Amino acid sequence: MPLTSGPQRPAPPEHEHEHRTEHDMLGDIDVPAHAYYGAHTARAVANFPLTGETLAARPHLIGALAAVKHAAARANAEVGALDPALASAIADACAEIRAGALREHFVVDLIQGGAGTSTNMNANEVIANRALELLGRHRGEYAVLHPLDHVNLGQSTNDVYPTAVKLALHAHLAELLGALAGLREAFAAKAAEFADVLKMGRTQLQDAVPMTLGQEFGAFAATLAEDEQRLSEAWLLLHELNLGGTAIGTGLNARPGYRERAMEHLRRLTGIPTLVSSPDLVEATQDVGVFVQLSGVLKRTAVKLSKICNDLRLLSSGPQAGLGEIALPARQAGSSIMPGKVNPVIPEAVNQIAFEVIGNDVTVTLAAEGGQLQLNAFEPVIYRSLSAGLAHLTAGIGVLTEHCVRGITAHRRRLADTVAASTGLVTALGPALGYETACAIALEAHHTGRPALDLVRERALLTEAELRDLTSPASLTGLPAV
Amino acid sequence: MPLTSGPQRPAPPEHEHEHRTEHDMLGDIDVPAHAYYGAHTARAVANFPLTGETLAARPHLIGALAAVKHAAARANAEVGALDPALASAIADACAEIRAGALREHFVVDLIQGGAGTSTNMNANEVIANRALELLGRHRGEYAVLHPLDHVNLGQSTNDVYPTAVKLALHAHLAELLGALAGLREAFAAKAAEFADVLKMGRTQLQDAVPMTLGQEFGAFAATLAEDEQRLSEAWLLLHELNLGGTAIGTGLNARPGYRERAMEHLRRLTGIPTLVSSPDLVEATQDVGVFVQLSGVLKRTAVKLSKICNDLRLLSSGPQAGLGEIALPARQAGSSIMPGKVNPVIPEAVNQIAFEVIGNDVTVTLAAEGGQLQLNAFEPVIYRSLSAGLAHLTAGIGVLTEHCVRGITAHRRRLADTVAASTGLVTALGPALGYETACAIALEAHHTGRPALDLVRERALLTEAELRDLTSPASLTGLPAV
Amino acid sequence: MPLTSGPQRPAPPEHEHEHRTEHDMLGDIDVPAHAYYGAHTARAVANFPLTGETLAARPHLIGALAAVKHAAARANAEVGALDPALASAIADACAEIRAGALREHFVVDLIQGGAGTSTNMNANEVIANRALELLGRHRGEYAVLHPLDHVNLGQSTNDVYPTAVKLALHAHLAELLGALAGLREAFAAKAAEFADVLKMGRTQLQDAVPMTLGQEFGAFAATLAEDEQRLSEAWLLLHELNLGGTAIGTGLNARPGYRERAMEHLRRLTGIPTLVSSPDLVEATQDVGVFVQLSGVLKRTAVKLSKICNDLRLLSSGPQAGLGEIALPARQAGSSIMPGKVNPVIPEAVNQIAFEVIGNDVTVTLAAEGGQLQLNAFEPVIYRSLSAGLAHLTAGIGVLTEHCVRGITAHRRRLADTVAASTGLVTALGPALGYETACAIALEAHHTGRPALDLVRERALLTEAELRDLTSPASLTGLPAV
Amino acid sequence: MPLTSGPQRPAPPEHEHEHRTEHDMLGDIDVPAHAYYGAHTARAVANFPLTGETLAARPHLIGALAAVKHAAARANAEVGALDPALASAIADACAEIRAGALREHFVVDLIQGGAGTSTNMNANEVIANRALELLGRHRGEYAVLHPLDHVNLGQSTNDVYPTAVKLALHAHLAELLGALAGLREAFAAKAAEFADVLKMGRTQLQDAVPMTLGQEFGAFAATLAEDEQRLSEAWLLLHELNLGGTAIGTGLNARPGYRERAMEHLRRLTGIPTLVSSPDLVEATQDVGVFVQLSGVLKRTAVKLSKICNDLRLLSSGPQAGLGEIALPARQAGSSIMPGKVNPVIPEAVNQIAFEVIGNDVTVTLAAEGGQLQLNAFEPVIYRSLSAGLAHLTAGIGVLTEHCVRGITAHRRRLADTVAASTGLVTALGPALGYETACAIALEAHHTGRPALDLVRERALLTEAELRDLTSPASLTGLPAV
Repeated sequence: MPLTSGPQRPAPPEHEHEHRTEHDMLGDIDVPAHAYYGAHTARAVANFPLTGETLAARPHLIGALAAVKHAAARANAEVGALDPALASAIADACAEIRAGALREHFVVDLIQGGAGTSTNMNANEVIANRALELLGRHRGEYAVLHPLDHVNLGQSTNDVYPTAVKLALHAHLAELLGALAGLREAFAAKAAEFADVLKMGRTQLQDAVPMTLGQEFGAFAATLAEDEQRLSEAWLLLHELNLGGTAIGTGLNARPGYRERAMEHLRRLTGIPTLVSSPDLVEATQDVGVFVQLSGVLKRTAVKLSKICNDLRLLSSGPQAGLGEIALPARQAGSSIMPGKVNPVIPEAVNQIAFEVIGNDVTVTLAAEGGQLQLNAFEPVIYRSLSAGLAHLTAGIGVLTEHCVRGITAHRRRLADTVAASTGLVTALGPALGYETACAIALEAHHTGRPALDLVRERALLTEAELRDLTSPASLTGLPAV
Repeated sequence: MPLTSGPQRPAPPEHEHEHRTEHDMLGDIDVPAHAYYGAHTARAVANFPLTGETLAARPHLIGALAAVKHAAARANAEVGALDPALASAIADACAEIRAGALREHFVVDLIQGGAGTSTNMNANEVIANRALELLGRHRGEYAVLHPLDHVNLGQSTNDVYPTAVKLALHAHLAELLGALAGLREAFAAKAAEFADVLKMGRTQLQDAVPMTLGQEFGAFAATLAEDEQRLSEAWLLLHELNLGGTAIGTGLNARPGYRERAMEHLRRLTGIPTLVSSPDLVEATQDVGVFVQLSGVLKRTAVKLSKICNDLRLLSSGPQAGLGEIALPARQAGSSIMPGKVNPVIPEAVNQIAFEVIGNDVTVTLAAEGGQLQLNAFEPVIYRSLSAGLAHLTAGIGVLTEHCVRGITAHRRRLADTVAASTGLVTALGPALGYETACAIALEAHHTGRPALDLVRERALLTEAELRDLTSPASLTGLPAV
Repeated sequence: MPLTSGPQRPAPPEHEHEHRTEHDMLGDIDVPAHAYYGAHTARAVANFPLTGETLAARPHLIGALAAVKHAAARANAEVGALDPALASAIADACAEIRAGALREHFVVDLIQGGAGTSTNMNANEVIANRALELLGRHRGEYAVLHPLDHVNLGQSTNDVYPTAVKLALHAHLAELLGALAGLREAFAAKAAEFADVLKMGRTQLQDAVPMTLGQEFGAFAATLAEDEQRLSEAWLLLHELNLGGTAIGTGLNARPGYRERAMEHLRRLTGIPTLVSSPDLVEATQDVGVFVQLSGVLKRTAVKLSKICNDLRLLSSGPQAGLGEIALPARQAGSSIMPGKVNPVIPEAVNQIAFEVIGNDVTVTLAAEGGQLQLNAFEPVIYRSLSAGLAHLTAGIGVLTEHCVRGITAHRRRLADTVAASTGLVTALGPALGYETACAIALEAHHTGRPALDLVRERALLTEAELRDLTSPASLTGLPAV
Repeated sequence: MPLTSGPQRPAPPEHEHEHRTEHDMLGDIDVPAHAYYGAHTARAVANFPLTGETLAARPHLIGALAAVKHAAARANAEVGALDPALASAIADACAEIRAGALREHFVVDLIQGGAGTSTNMNANEVIANRALELLGRHRGEYAVLHPLDHVNLGQSTNDVYPTAVKLALHAHLAELLGALAGLREAFAAKAAEFADVLKMGRTQLQDAVPMTLGQEFGAFAATLAEDEQRLSEAWLLLHELNLGGTAIGTGLNARPGYRERAMEHLRRLTGIPTLVSSPDLVEATQDVGVFVQLSGVLKRTAVKLSKICNDLRLLSSGPQAGLGEIALPARQAGSSIMPGKVNPVIPEAVNQIAFEVIGNDVTVTLAAEGGQLQLNAFEPVIYRSLSAGLAHLTAGIGVLTEHCVRGITAHRRRLADTVAASTGLVTALGPALGYETACAIALEAHHTGRPALDLVRERALLTEAELRDLTSPASLTGLPAV
């Protein structure tokens, strides 16, 4: 699912020139009358006209922010810090946003200074103004319900933002795991389909020893299964949250009992029962190790996918002057000048997404290394990089599964011919002949073009029974005889 | 300027359910009746639902493609390969597109397999259909004017796409150079403003020897000037094009004389008189070294900017518990929990863009390394990464200049105090006292908290005249006495 | 422990001009008479004069190779493939090598083509020749005991090399984990020592809210404890081995029962009872995901260490014109020109090692992505990068622990002064005053230089009791009152 | 040439337990009696037991340091700051070191904190002690000639170290350029040898259109020629030096006239007449942009080489089941289990060096980004990474040239067969037939296995003369008819 397929800017309202005036520590500022966001968001929009990609392009993050604010409001009411009527209005506004409403009012650029403060402010303001409406008030009546004094009560960007980012990445990662499972199953199905197709295995691109095409595709399935395991481990690490630590992890301004209740509400709202508080909230506030870990594992998956796509492109190279072992489904004309050419466009696209993810890992690494003292100011670019990589990989894997892997066919004739012609069978005779004799046979076969087995027969180095036994498919591939 | 501020998808047409049927080597396919693109583009949209970021987000590339097609049509007419009436219609359509028309019909995802074929096809189809209209025909009447036989005549994606990419990057880079010049000038103005403000220089974050704040800001200006030079050199490398090489650089299917004339038209249309043909077109078709070079220089600029932003954040740290040497303009409330806090949000945003650019360089590197034999299939992600980095840097530098650097003020009192208190002045006495004696003085000053010069006076190690001479601002900073 | 502290080349023998002639598939080749290595090794030395860093610089790898060969010989004897007398001689030679003998005969460059073949050949030859001696024969009498037919029996480089590499990395990682535990304990000790030292916490380098210096150092300890967990998880992944898969994972040429027995011997010889065979040996032969994973986690640790070193350098900046909160032990004169200057040289060195490790991760990534079909030919550079990073990190952490962290002292007076002077206390009043009122107080305090609490008192916004309660150390830091 | 082939530690002296006592700001310290280094070096050896790779492994850097110290001594004497007798002794000691003497006394680890201070101190001490001997004094008689007051006079690590590093890299780069020229010439020779060998060009690994093997190898030569140009440009950037700027670029403690004279001597001693002073020495002291630039261009070269090696491995894949277009010289047995297998070990080794260089670029980038205020403390790891990459590339290119490229042969029969069998010839008929007709022919040829030209003839779509003209080698390859 593309991240940015929707419109990124709110559609112009009917009365777009109408404004209301809001106020912050820098003075007055006008915001559009129709806007649910307020002064802090407006400042951020002016400060960060950088990528054009706004929070609206990340529904998972918006939903996660709303869940956190919802949980905080309920917890604050329960510990007596917030008027229950205000808490209910805030919760209702959050529920609407989690259901998809008001997304177009999340207008701050994804790359922003301030460690996510503008993202938190945007959420506080949209929620406050919607809650005011639900209370029968007008937007901007902050004396009744204030973005900071009420929506942000007992919170800091420094605990809210990382918490929401982890929940958003959790959702992204679940989607990726689903896509990976689909690709793994598609490869496993091909492994079964090609279970009896003998072919030459290759090491260092040189003919090695025989195997089946089923083993080759089975290895793709097996290697992805391992990535699913590693990604699932990283997924669990996202369950540890610093909500309640406020500014630097000391919990300043959060009421006693608030943190525990907020976490309980968050578990309920997200349906993730294993969310827990970090044992050291000061550490948790400044540490972004979990993102580096996730990025590293994501990179691992990208490397695997790129290697698999490279292999698919190699195996389908040709049609005449390449390996020509398999055919990928034709998806589009391959060339504007070469009629009839078909290219492996789907694997090529996935390669490129893999390269993007590998580059993003360096971005995440630099951002992580740049954290200073009690906070890492660069979490916005970490989130942007990780969420883009996760979403693009998910999309790419889906296309690879449906439009490429499921339709792969084998050139069985060609595969059989190459096994028959290969000197690689000599390896199977090595233990019987000794390395040096086998070497001599292989070299003579290669130079004369004669089949190696004929040379062995000619010199009576082995009996027919020995030869048959050593070169049976079962013996060669380690698979049980069919 | 953000890349993706415009709508990325064509607005729904009035009769959105109407279609026309087109045909390609895979069979029939419906395209929306209102669409200027055709069958090949429609296949690509189905194949690459990956990032949601389409060609429409890159006006520079669309304009460059139109310029190339325009030049090719004129050249083909001149060498007798193309009916002049068709050439004129194509040229007129291209002129409209270069002026900004039909952008929303460039709908293919920026990440795409096929080495840019789908981008080229999208351009061929939009141009053909618009040219058909200009000829009084209907879209889809390809028997009259064909996207491949006429618009793409004598061309291949493999020469058209890299040529257009280079021209697009050329335009991006010109914008970046303009932004950099503005930032350099802003730093130079501050250098002049702070020319007489003495402060302690620091090496390895430890107090070193005195300098002026003007020298510090002057170094920022000087270092950016060097980057402008390096970027300008990379800019010139973009002038070498492989247009006319067609599929693999052998020029197959291009008429004699076509290449020279196409290049001449391209020079005229782009206003870049120094565009030249690569001397070895086979090499030029497969080589992406210029993009690796550009990416490396762009990364260099990002590293410099990140270092400068780090310095600005360090120098403005505080207000009480930090270095507190300068103040950045307050741009927004810094915290949702800490009232009155102001953060260096603009430099922080630029740091993050720098990290993005550095990560992109790895993406570009992997894509470049992945080229095989006569072509690099991964140019789309190279272009996407470079154009994003260029645009984001340009935007970030603009904000840094206007909303940060121009408004920086110096805490002159504090700076003067730290110079007076510093043991760093001992260095200036080193040649006169000898390293070991000066060391002993510095250590005693540090441990007792007494001014180092007092200790020198007390022991009569130097005369007052010597001391005055050695510690004058001019002597300390290497600047002429005021 | 440095990797390359020992001599890298064998000392010249007494009769260095004496040679014996060996033979391989390319013909005859002379090797020094004193050498335990043979023809294949000699070819490799000629082919790879690249870095000057040879296998001899990696005792862990040599030991692991010897363990694998030892286990294989025993297993082959048990399944009837190898004469027990030959197996015993091989095992004895391996035992000597594991004890440190003959290291200087491992002469192949660490960067080598061939997927580790030359490393395996070097081991086969040294072991064979030493075993021949133990049998009372001369080096080179391969008709009796052959490097390939006997020492390498039932094996391929493609299962032996990755197995040995994993065991070697396992040993490196154990050393790193030991060093990390020492550093964590040193930080924890400092956390206890500084438990009552109040200071200003900082977010984005700006004064935030109070905390203790003990909390700051405690966070360093806590964050390293997490890295130890992640590294331990990666450590366990190294237990899965592909020994017995031979050339491409099909187990061609390995006798039935060999793999199980070889693994059993390997568990015994290494003392690692949890070593297991990969479930899919074809996948395991080509996959290097575990190295990418390990590299990613290692990079995470490097990022954490670099951030900690950055913080130590920031906190100790000065002495007069910096933060000056802590002092690092003076380890050497800091400057050749600035007498008395002391620099944070130990953290700086660790920063640089971290940068090396982060760069190595990209090297490993590229090498992993470059694997093709049934093998990754680039495992040598993967091993070289990982083992260098592990060893350098281990050494750097040891120095950081002993020569820096253990000797850190706090400038308690300065820390107390900055807390008293800070407007950051206003945050603690936020819930009581409301965000906007608190903002106004903070700004006035900042602009007038007056203490914020005085302004609150002056306006009677809070009672003395409220102020005392809100600004008590326990309330501010979230720690229990002392 | 390997960097570390020599012994890295001084051989144990006859009386190795004898010491002399030296003194620095931290107190007394013993150094071995035979050592030419002194107290500061001894501290550094204790502080940095990190990689085991010492300055002794970098003769270019030692030579450059000696040249700088030599030039400084002469300049100081000329401006009256240094006794001419002392200056002569220093110069003579430097001349000996430049000729290769005393290398084993450069014992500090290449990774070191302190921005190179320990390297500078090591040089100061060795030179001082050798100069003392030349004056008839004993080592350690610093009252006569002092490492800092005399050898380091008017200098700081912060100008000496970067100056020496640039000169050392200059020498490394000259060697790399020589190696590249050799490789380029080898490819050009093969291009001439294969000028008439027709083959199928490939795009995206799919059969494209014909070309000659000579064009393919000619492109390798052409692309390396471009890298030589880019590297030469980076080489020139190394000519700008900050010698004379001392601690932070203000020139504190350098006598008037010293800088100009020192530069003049340096030009003379190095034989590089174009060495110049940086126009802004404050900027030059802190800036490491030139190293980032050099690293980026080096990475570009690595990317090109890796792509070329990938191509060589692809083209030589087989022998039966691969492309099998060329044969690389057999250099060693390829497998310990597969008799007769020959692997492309030389290109594989160069691939790995390329991956190392690409990873090093990230290390250099991080180190550059980490510079703060008036200095970058991380230049040692920058130098280590760049010098290793340069030396390894130089060695790898030499091996590739001599042991691989020069011996490549073409499988001419196979190449001719693939051209004859290919449907790629249809492209040449595209302009004559139209894209859609040509497409249909190509698809039919592919599906039926019949030659495409036969299908064209069968349908009388073109005359024999047209066919002959369109498919002549000259027409297909763009080369003049032979």
